[in-house]
Amino acid sequence: MFVVMARTATEAEILGVKSHILAEGMTPYDHVGADRIVIAVVGEVGPRRQELMSRLAGLPGVETITPISRPFKLTSREFHTEDTIVRVLDAVIGDGGLTVMAGPCSVESRDQLLETAAFVKGHGATVLRGGAFKPRTSPYSFQGLGVEALRHLAEASQLTGLPTITEVMEPNQVDIVAEYTDILQIGARNMQNYSLLNAAGRVARPVMLKRGFGATIEELLMAAEYIVAAGNPNVILCERGIRTFETYTRNTLDLAAVPLLHHLTHLPVVVDPSHATGKRWLVKPLAIGGAAVGADGIMVEVHPRPDEALSDAEQQLDHAQFADLMTALLPVHEHVRSLHGDPLVTGPALGIGAGALSKH
Amino acid sequence: MFVVMARTATEAEILGVKSHILAEGMTPYDHVGADRIVIAVVGEVGPRRQELMSRLAGLPGVETITPISRPFKLTSREFHTEDTIVRVLDAVIGDGGLTVMAGPCSVESRDQLLETAAFVKGHGATVLRGGAFKPRTSPYSFQGLGVEALRHLAEASQLTGLPTITEVMEPNQVDIVAEYTDILQIGARNMQNYSLLNAAGRVARPVMLKRGFGATIEELLMAAEYIVAAGNPNVILCERGIRTFETYTRNTLDLAAVPLLHHLTHLPVVVDPSHATGKRWLVKPLAIGGAAVGADGIMVEVHPRPDEALSDAEQQLDHAQFADLMTALLPVHEHVRSLHGDPLVTGPALGIGAGALSKH
Amino acid sequence: MFVVMARTATEAEILGVKSHILAEGMTPYDHVGADRIVIAVVGEVGPRRQELMSRLAGLPGVETITPISRPFKLTSREFHTEDTIVRVLDAVIGDGGLTVMAGPCSVESRDQLLETAAFVKGHGATVLRGGAFKPRTSPYSFQGLGVEALRHLAEASQLTGLPTITEVMEPNQVDIVAEYTDILQIGARNMQNYSLLNAAGRVARPVMLKRGFGATIEELLMAAEYIVAAGNPNVILCERGIRTFETYTRNTLDLAAVPLLHHLTHLPVVVDPSHATGKRWLVKPLAIGGAAVGADGIMVEVHPRPDEALSDAEQQLDHAQFADLMTALLPVHEHVRSLHGDPLVTGPALGIGAGALSKH
Amino acid sequence: MFVVMARTATEAEILGVKSHILAEGMTPYDHVGADRIVIAVVGEVGPRRQELMSRLAGLPGVETITPISRPFKLTSREFHTEDTIVRVLDAVIGDGGLTVMAGPCSVESRDQLLETAAFVKGHGATVLRGGAFKPRTSPYSFQGLGVEALRHLAEASQLTGLPTITEVMEPNQVDIVAEYTDILQIGARNMQNYSLLNAAGRVARPVMLKRGFGATIEELLMAAEYIVAAGNPNVILCERGIRTFETYTRNTLDLAAVPLLHHLTHLPVVVDPSHATGKRWLVKPLAIGGAAVGADGIMVEVHPRPDEALSDAEQQLDHAQFADLMTALLPVHEHVRSLHGDPLVTGPALGIGAGALSKH
Repeated sequence: MFVVMARTATEAEILGVKSHILAEGMTPYDHVGADRIVIAVVGEVGPRRQELMSRLAGLPGVETITPISRPFKLTSREFHTEDTIVRVLDAVIGDGGLTVMAGPCSVESRDQLLETAAFVKGHGATVLRGGAFKPRTSPYSFQGLGVEALRHLAEASQLTGLPTITEVMEPNQVDIVAEYTDILQIGARNMQNYSLLNAAGRVARPVMLKRGFGATIEELLMAAEYIVAAGNPNVILCERGIRTFETYTRNTLDLAAVPLLHHLTHLPVVVDPSHATGKRWLVKPLAIGGAAVGADGIMVEVHPRPDEALSDAEQQLDHAQFADLMTALLPVHEHVRSLHGDPLVTGPALGIGAGALSKH
Repeated sequence: MFVVMARTATEAEILGVKSHILAEGMTPYDHVGADRIVIAVVGEVGPRRQELMSRLAGLPGVETITPISRPFKLTSREFHTEDTIVRVLDAVIGDGGLTVMAGPCSVESRDQLLETAAFVKGHGATVLRGGAFKPRTSPYSFQGLGVEALRHLAEASQLTGLPTITEVMEPNQVDIVAEYTDILQIGARNMQNYSLLNAAGRVARPVMLKRGFGATIEELLMAAEYIVAAGNPNVILCERGIRTFETYTRNTLDLAAVPLLHHLTHLPVVVDPSHATGKRWLVKPLAIGGAAVGADGIMVEVHPRPDEALSDAEQQLDHAQFADLMTALLPVHEHVRSLHGDPLVTGPALGIGAGALSKH
Repeated sequence: MFVVMARTATEAEILGVKSHILAEGMTPYDHVGADRIVIAVVGEVGPRRQELMSRLAGLPGVETITPISRPFKLTSREFHTEDTIVRVLDAVIGDGGLTVMAGPCSVESRDQLLETAAFVKGHGATVLRGGAFKPRTSPYSFQGLGVEALRHLAEASQLTGLPTITEVMEPNQVDIVAEYTDILQIGARNMQNYSLLNAAGRVARPVMLKRGFGATIEELLMAAEYIVAAGNPNVILCERGIRTFETYTRNTLDLAAVPLLHHLTHLPVVVDPSHATGKRWLVKPLAIGGAAVGADGIMVEVHPRPDEALSDAEQQLDHAQFADLMTALLPVHEHVRSLHGDPLVTGPALGIGAGALSKH
Repeated sequence: MFVVMARTATEAEILGVKSHILAEGMTPYDHVGADRIVIAVVGEVGPRRQELMSRLAGLPGVETITPISRPFKLTSREFHTEDTIVRVLDAVIGDGGLTVMAGPCSVESRDQLLETAAFVKGHGATVLRGGAFKPRTSPYSFQGLGVEALRHLAEASQLTGLPTITEVMEPNQVDIVAEYTDILQIGARNMQNYSLLNAAGRVARPVMLKRGFGATIEELLMAAEYIVAAGNPNVILCERGIRTFETYTRNTLDLAAVPLLHHLTHLPVVVDPSHATGKRWLVKPLAIGGAAVGADGIMVEVHPRPDEALSDAEQQLDHAQFADLMTALLPVHEHVRSLHGDPLVTGPALGIGAGALSKH
């Protein structure tokens, strides 16, 4: 449930509500909205829900209590109606602009990374991607350069000014990845690696969480909930295709997830057409499709010479293809950005206020 | 295999090749391209393939023989490199423009249909849709008005000038549906109803074939192959979502299918966001997404008062929503239409000429 | 809803209830159970449900009215608690024994069919299968011998005494297939071909309905409901695998469907491991698995020389493999048949009587 | 590729081959089979494959070199033709018997665990399961008792003599879990958590690896390959259902995976019907089905009072239901165990020797 505080609530009243919630064995999370404070009450409340609601409604400074039936709380639009905007160096994600995260699948060498970093920066990318620790299906495949790659990423960032994003695969890597790079990525295979989610929730870096290829939209939000509940509000979601019976593409990109997520959550949504399709020549049309359905960003793999790549050779764009993509992509985003309505009004009514228990 | 005739081939040489193919127990289909004739040889050739290729290569007027490994032949880009353009009344589908097929899920009454027909015509729809025979999951649900609905569709067409499309559910209905309406639709559940495909292949009306929700892209093309092989080249394909584990949306719209199909086949591709999502408020963003990935058309369900609809109440747009959609949709199409490259050059090389057996 | 008549209800009272139902625009279906009659009321009742229930409860001879929330009515266990037993020639399907339907994928010649028919009969098969009209993905593949195959099936039946089953692909074929063979099969691709379901509902032959590879269990039951509602109570269900992302097997055999269906419906359930796996060597373990979870029958493809088969060469057993399978299969069935509890008591409580509106 | 050593090969020759492999930058793994040694050569060999094969074939003591196209090597039947048998305390897994792993979803208290441990031991269970660290979809759900639960498991093992299995969720937990329990479980959500797989590969405890609900059989084997390649040969595989469009059951149990895995790999295979179906009343028929298709073991959740369980209340058996299951299960296993052929001969020919490069 959410406790909506009155506009006139004092600091002391807010503290009083939070203490009461803690005393009940639940955890309070507050969100300072544009004009008032909302406090989410999370934990297993069980049968005393009705009683607790009544008790909280009676506290000074409380305006209404809103029950919430969805399993995700802190990541829900009901809790936090305005969009979350993630700022990192000069990049702003979720403010209505289109973030472009580009770079090689794997960092293979300093030269390869710097060459591509300079190129994508020059063509409008706003975040540099590059894998250091690679989750590979086979134990015998190239597993990434590890810390050496992190150093190259840090250098590339210094040279280009671009913030960097790289995947982190286990709790123990979180600190070092956070030391060298700007955004932590949790990959599709680790979307429900709860130890990793908790660790990522305790670091002062934004986290991009990729949807598992076998995961529903609700499970993606529950995974994000772990990170936010552990203390990190700067979560970016990424749709990268789900597993279906279709075999022409590696996965099936679920573009309906973009407007759905914008309705259900305040977190920004990025689309990754490279991993979704597994085919270089499908990246451009689906990147355009992603921008057209309202994505906050696009992530694409770019390599100076894709045919020599140590991983994902089939799906990385070469430099010329990336330049061609960017020529098309940004104008499409400009064109459609005003077309999508406010997610608060386009979808079915959110639960805000519905069934709310007014104080008086 | 395909027999590519020389530019200088005479009528008699072409006939000679076709007779030879028939004599071998195979069936020849010719396609008169921009500058030459290609003859597809279909049937189960078995082990004598190599010998047959050599023999055909030796006939007068033959330039090359191209083997084709894909199971779809007449619907493939290799056979027919230029786009198929379907013309029906004033509508042109597949010429680079955006066809908008709109109208109610079911024709429920003359008034309802005429009201919506006039409205969608006024807001830019180019084809009128409306169900007469309805495939319903339950035998106890409304099954459509049948022939009475066909008569209303014919009247609506006369009044608005719009060509009409309606679903046909069995071979016996093909003639009457063809008598009253302009485009026959074969629904997702009947995509592999081969008797119906054959019947639709023998009628002088374009056919829109919807992808089954459990069907691969290759199976969609094989189903289209039935219609074309039976004699009807005017087939329109429709992506309407596939079945996955995700439950927020009714199905998962596979927008990658659009550029894939444009690469694999010469047939036009329409996207149906209404059935794919099952949610009215997702129709607009996914219609825009469909146009953005290069679809030749969009099909949407529109009802004057969706809440009173006898079928698909959840997903039909009302008139105002349709008007709002059209304001957004056509400019997006205009904007992106030049962005997608020629499907003959964007994807991997087609088999044309690859492994061809030259005559000389 | 179901109207449960009192044990003492007279013929006239029963007629009275049925007339009343018809007068309300609904359709009554009665089931004469072991000790009383239940009348299902089907049709779109809309908001007057409560009123209609009250009115029916007040009629003479009525004991209780049971609402039913499931969309399938006549096929539900609630309507018809005892198992449906299908009898055809000497075969009995659904009585606790194990029916074995065996024979070639396609009837390819009189000799081939008679050879296999005699063999499978000699090794315990109780029904002879063989395709006459073949639904093939490609229009250029062997489409079956048609009526000629039907004649061979009739002859094989006369010689062996086995009843025959063959697929029917369109409403127009129903009569001729019913003339020559004993059980009509509706294939997976036609599971939601409603015209065909209706036609099969009007013929005096049992129908085996295969689950579509993209269909849920509920949709399978709704498709069966079409046949039963059209007048044919002798429906056999068949689980033959659903489409998933796994590619080692052609489809994924859903053996949980067997106990689930036994709980939800009174219709017998057959398992087809040949089509599910697409691999000959997996037929035996999965046939055993099917028998072990309680299937009423197993359908397997058997060919004298599978490598020469005109269809499904990969999955047909040869004669020796069939003999080996039968040696294993029947004892497993004998062994497990007493292990599975009464479906009326094993699963969650059925809706029978739940929420029932008692008359007095 | 595999290097098959001659029966007469000396220790020195074996060492010579291994040194050569290491000098080439590849890694040798040897398997001492019944009558000879096979050395697997793993790593990215690239274009010098043919040359390397020739060179190895020329070394003293080498009989043949077998190329292997499958991506899994050490887990393949080709490398290790006899079954892997895992022994832990008195339990033997993979020797043809049926292992039954039973116990509560979560260890909730000492009493609850000891009560169930004694009961399942008394009714034939051979391994005690119980969750200590629980991977929960929601961060607000019960997360397990952690180390306290491990202590209860150790005590229960001492009292009953049963070896214990519990899930480990991150590399840091591997040591402590290995200290208190006998078999480490890696859950479906962590199947591709490569850091965890590597950590589990370095511990002296058997590991049961559950198939991810979005993972193919090949990916399951690749994940097992990580553990084996890291040094731990005692891996048990577990089929627990995959995600499909069917919603009656939580997942779709893929029983074809059992004979398939027995053909592809030497590792034992356990079936978990509790998680697959999510419904208590379906556990028995599918446990029987699992035994019938040849599983080496069954894992079931058992709780003294399932309705009070803190997790998975819907699917845990109560004690009486477990006793009933065991009465049925073991005789079925006894009955079918001789029916399934040798996996070396039932499926298609393995690659052993196929394309082998003989030395002479």
